[in-house]
Amino acid sequence: MNEFIYQKLVKALSQQIEDAVWQPGDKIPSIRALASQFDVAKVSVQHALHRLEAAGLVQAKPRSGYYVTAKAVGYKQQPTSLIPNKPQIAKVPDVFHSIMARGAAFDILPAARDKSEHNQHIALLNRHIGRASRIHADRHASYYGDPAGDSELRQQLRQHYQQHGVYLAQEEICITSGCQHSLFLALMSCCEPGDTVAIESPAFYGVLQILISLKLKVVEIPASVTQGIELDELETAFKKWPIKACVVSPNFATPTGACMPLQNKHRLLALAEKHQVVLIEDDIYTELGFHLRPECLKQFDKSGNVIHCSSLSKSLSRDLRTGWISGGKFHDKIVHLKLVNQLANSLSLQQGVASFIGEGHFKRYLLQQRRRLLKQRDNWVTAINHYWPDEIRYTLPDGGLSFWVEFPKQVDTLTLYQNMLKHDIVLTPGMLFSTQSHYSNCLRLSFAHPLTSAREKALQKIARQLSRCK
Amino acid sequence: MNEFIYQKLVKALSQQIEDAVWQPGDKIPSIRALASQFDVAKVSVQHALHRLEAAGLVQAKPRSGYYVTAKAVGYKQQPTSLIPNKPQIAKVPDVFHSIMARGAAFDILPAARDKSEHNQHIALLNRHIGRASRIHADRHASYYGDPAGDSELRQQLRQHYQQHGVYLAQEEICITSGCQHSLFLALMSCCEPGDTVAIESPAFYGVLQILISLKLKVVEIPASVTQGIELDELETAFKKWPIKACVVSPNFATPTGACMPLQNKHRLLALAEKHQVVLIEDDIYTELGFHLRPECLKQFDKSGNVIHCSSLSKSLSRDLRTGWISGGKFHDKIVHLKLVNQLANSLSLQQGVASFIGEGHFKRYLLQQRRRLLKQRDNWVTAINHYWPDEIRYTLPDGGLSFWVEFPKQVDTLTLYQNMLKHDIVLTPGMLFSTQSHYSNCLRLSFAHPLTSAREKALQKIARQLSRCK
Repeated sequence: MNEFIYQKLVKALSQQIEDAVWQPGDKIPSIRALASQFDVAKVSVQHALHRLEAAGLVQAKPRSGYYVTAKAVGYKQQPTSLIPNKPQIAKVPDVFHSIMARGAAFDILPAARDKSEHNQHIALLNRHIGRASRIHADRHASYYGDPAGDSELRQQLRQHYQQHGVYLAQEEICITSGCQHSLFLALMSCCEPGDTVAIESPAFYGVLQILISLKLKVVEIPASVTQGIELDELETAFKKWPIKACVVSPNFATPTGACMPLQNKHRLLALAEKHQVVLIEDDIYTELGFHLRPECLKQFDKSGNVIHCSSLSKSLSRDLRTGWISGGKFHDKIVHLKLVNQLANSLSLQQGVASFIGEGHFKRYLLQQRRRLLKQRDNWVTAINHYWPDEIRYTLPDGGLSFWVEFPKQVDTLTLYQNMLKHDIVLTPGMLFSTQSHYSNCLRLSFAHPLTSAREKALQKIARQLSRCK
Repeated sequence: MNEFIYQKLVKALSQQIEDAVWQPGDKIPSIRALASQFDVAKVSVQHALHRLEAAGLVQAKPRSGYYVTAKAVGYKQQPTSLIPNKPQIAKVPDVFHSIMARGAAFDILPAARDKSEHNQHIALLNRHIGRASRIHADRHASYYGDPAGDSELRQQLRQHYQQHGVYLAQEEICITSGCQHSLFLALMSCCEPGDTVAIESPAFYGVLQILISLKLKVVEIPASVTQGIELDELETAFKKWPIKACVVSPNFATPTGACMPLQNKHRLLALAEKHQVVLIEDDIYTELGFHLRPECLKQFDKSGNVIHCSSLSKSLSRDLRTGWISGGKFHDKIVHLKLVNQLANSLSLQQGVASFIGEGHFKRYLLQQRRRLLKQRDNWVTAINHYWPDEIRYTLPDGGLSFWVEFPKQVDTLTLYQNMLKHDIVLTPGMLFSTQSHYSNCLRLSFAHPLTSAREKALQKIARQLSRCK
């Protein structure tokens, strides 16, 4: 495979950072200087710097330039102690449930503390839904919609995907009540109780809970905090255990924000095909790439082996409760399960969303949203750099909604969670992302919400608590 | 147990009808005359006549009086050939799925043929939802709601129940995406794959599909077309098989519209308690009683053994996708399963519904809706009396949305369904209501929609097809 110029640059600059040509905190040469030094176009340098930023090696400071990150250096790999477990029926401590119920709020402070800033796109979206509900009010009240979803919404999603090189027919898309619902239907369609499922570790806690509810066995595969699931480890597991399905979130996975390189995606697809393992793709964060929209597994799926799950909850509104699933060879079964599980989704809501997307508002909203999230990521990272102890390491994702913070071994984030709860501060401790009690010194931080002064104060309170752990 | 006066009257009048004191089609004496003859209050006669009407023995003709029904006479019992099956993993023929997907439309003709009549209440409901979506637009877009549901909506439901003598705390109610969703969560919470569940026969096909999806064994208990599940048969089954749960729809059950007498409800509760069987109550039609709102099982549940499922889909709007569940001792598990299955429901929608109920519109809508449905029931019954052969028997429910038609043995309603599909007429054949291939000569007819002239023509087409079956 031919390397792009920017990829060569990424390698060269990474090497220089690793070789300590610059120290943490140093400003690296300007884009103009690097373009001249490597004899390449400035746009290639810019592209390479975005990649380095995504990999957490450098950090942009507005109107100043790029700096080698103080704490990201060396944090490219998983804690080395992590080894895949033997498949076993998934279970988690009871405290997990209450944290998860709170964690669905997905924030350091309850929503009530937020001064809502008016978003024109959301207001417009609501008008579209209102209009759809008026047009066929009585018909909608009297009839259930198609279990697979409103055809106009599926048509809009088809077109949206097509613009990004993902070719799906309308019949290959089934509307659900969000990505969690899609993942539930996906696992229920291809697994029987007692079957074994491979997951990345750390993994989204929502998936762990589905595995428990469906009485599935789980084997956790270590994942790099920048590049996602470790494929050598996964291949070993495929050979060793009778694995039925593998759930991955290739793009900007929660909690780390890791993004699988393209060649890893191709290798994953080939491995799954070879070992006849169903790939369940959680694609909810793909639209939230700050600099580029990475490829999903589904677009390379020739045999129908990939069950693709996504939603508008992160990219537009959580209140829509609107997701979708494209189930490959399991699709008919999935549509039937959707019918059995809850008949249909609201027609007014789906038709309102369809016209909102159809008029181009979703695309415009995404542009705005990506800029907003990138800014918020930088604000949050700057703040924890400022308030939290020097010993932390963290990821610096190039998209998504969250980053992963690792504290020194002696810090127990479950205790931290419990202590901060007394101050009405809700944290998401690392233990939530594994069935194996890993990550007791880690924390997921969300930058989905603006860093208000109340949240900054919360970060200071956490810092004071941390200083007592020493 | 002391009999009420109206119950004695029901017995006396039933006996006279059975003894052929009046012939089918005869007008029975007026309320005033009967009150004088039996020396009771007119209100007791009225109450008794409602019961006889619910039992299908008499039929009210507006501004005329009560008539002995032509075809309901003698149709009080189940086909006698029906005996409970040995528990076995539920399965149904493939054709079942496609009929069910169409049957969710729940009508004889597609919605598109309907000239929507404007309903002010539905328009008002949409305005309430629109307002709720505007008030906290940005907060709703950014945060998931409580998995158990919006507290204001739960509060309104609590008050609504309380007015009808059902005392539930807000914490005992969990919002779902409809009654099908509630039933799914109910069965998933109290059964493991391979467990045995008792159901009434005929039963709601949505429940059969859940049993199949969750790999549960099923034993079908005969149900009277007027009084619901046969308790002697159920008791025998409880003694004979390791039954974990029993799903019943005590009030105006689809397909027959049967309503369990109060004493049967008490006996059912005692039986379930004694044999430690969980009772899952599908209560979706209770609000649609034309003359009275019958008691639900939940209101007599002292031990938390009843999982109560309901929804606004039949009583207000299918487009809301809003139901609820009160899970007794399984409630915590159910709320957790709801979270795992799909996180939360739309906050805007829930808050809009809550304010609609809170301002008294739901109650007013129900009054209107009950009158409308009673009128539609009579129109449909009159029409099939007019167009369909004399040999049919049918139920005449006192609430709900559907009645049950039995043809002579040689009529196969699955073939009828397939033939009528060519004319874009969607029927709901009897086989859909059993896992045991019963009811091949039965049909469910819905009176949820007005009998338009297009639907009347459809009934005529069906009649022509029926005449060819002879």
